[in-house]
Amino acid sequence: MPKHLTKDLENLQRSLLRMAGCVEDAVASATAALRARDPDAARKVVAGDDEIDRLENAVQDECLKILALHQPVAVDLRRISVVLMIATDLERIGDLAVGIAERAMALSRPPLIPIPDEIERMTERTLGMVRASLDAFVNGDPAAAARVIHADDEVDRDNEEIIHGLVGAMKRCPDLVEPSLSLFSAVRHLERIADHATNIAEDVIYLVNGEIVRHHPEALRGG
Amino acid sequence: MPKHLTKDLENLQRSLLRMAGCVEDAVASATAALRARDPDAARKVVAGDDEIDRLENAVQDECLKILALHQPVAVDLRRISVVLMIATDLERIGDLAVGIAERAMALSRPPLIPIPDEIERMTERTLGMVRASLDAFVNGDPAAAARVIHADDEVDRDNEEIIHGLVGAMKRCPDLVEPSLSLFSAVRHLERIADHATNIAEDVIYLVNGEIVRHHPEALRGG
Repeated sequence: MPKHLTKDLENLQRSLLRMAGCVEDAVASATAALRARDPDAARKVVAGDDEIDRLENAVQDECLKILALHQPVAVDLRRISVVLMIATDLERIGDLAVGIAERAMALSRPPLIPIPDEIERMTERTLGMVRASLDAFVNGDPAAAARVIHADDEVDRDNEEIIHGLVGAMKRCPDLVEPSLSLFSAVRHLERIADHATNIAEDVIYLVNGEIVRHHPEALRGG
Repeated sequence: MPKHLTKDLENLQRSLLRMAGCVEDAVASATAALRARDPDAARKVVAGDDEIDRLENAVQDECLKILALHQPVAVDLRRISVVLMIATDLERIGDLAVGIAERAMALSRPPLIPIPDEIERMTERTLGMVRASLDAFVNGDPAAAARVIHADDEVDRDNEEIIHGLVGAMKRCPDLVEPSLSLFSAVRHLERIADHATNIAEDVIYLVNGEIVRHHPEALRGG
């Protein structure tokens, strides 16, 4: 591999990880704002999304420049297409964090409803999946990526449990339908963040093994 | 441009449009199943998603092969990266159609709730946006793409109006909270399909004008 290509790919990875750091912060801040009913912290997450979008555009530009300049093939080409896909997933996670922050603002206004404890557990699991999927990318570790994919089942269970509780609350207290719907949306956003972490993990397996597992969970058997 | 590259790019466009046709059918069938409370039609949409996933993988493979074989530059390279992005959006639209179909199955079981007429209007607008965004791609027409982006505001208004009505229904009839939540989710899915059509339109503008408008709506001024 030519020396310049190696260097450009290293820079590309750094740009992607810079974007990932911003996205992880956005998710952590949005969920913390939700639990603390802190509208100012939530507003900061919304304002920070422009920076995430800017970083995604920069990653895409870098990918296209490397493709045009080095015309990479095989595993280098695969790496660039994976970086493009991960950047798309990260940008959507950022959008979902904004969605959670918007719900946090709504939930900080009366009537206040209790935030179920299970949301903290679901948040920790989801954030753990996002971080682990990116670590698996950095380390080129398909076994770690497979663990992320399996962890998604737990988040789905958290999601169902919380939504079951919210439906009960809405039935008992019609006055609380609106804040409960905000919480419902926030929980669904969190669940979708976990889905995007799963996508990233699937991309890592594709990168390392050259095997497309997006939409093919059976390829993970024994993984 | 070498002759073989032209031919490969034509074949790639055909593959993408085949995928787009399946995705449009999935959205139309899922929303029709919802309005008709037809669980069998809904199940067909769920079963058809594997084919959409297969077509997305095929488009990605074709893109990587063209990149490796022809090492295209400038506008050809941009076209391939746009096809990759559009395929990702189409795949997500397909997933959202599955989500709508799942809600349609839930809504076909008692207690039955009325499906608001506004959903039909929102569906037609959304499907119109998906079709128009793909026509704009085929015709390389940035003005048509800009109209798709502006149409998203109308879908957002439909979305707010329907959800306002649903909140009222949930408050009045606590027994109908569960089906109302299913309808709430279906409407949010439809709204997100319109967002993906907007993404596709933004990609068309990027392809034709070389200008990134994803996340930069101000670039559309006067467009």
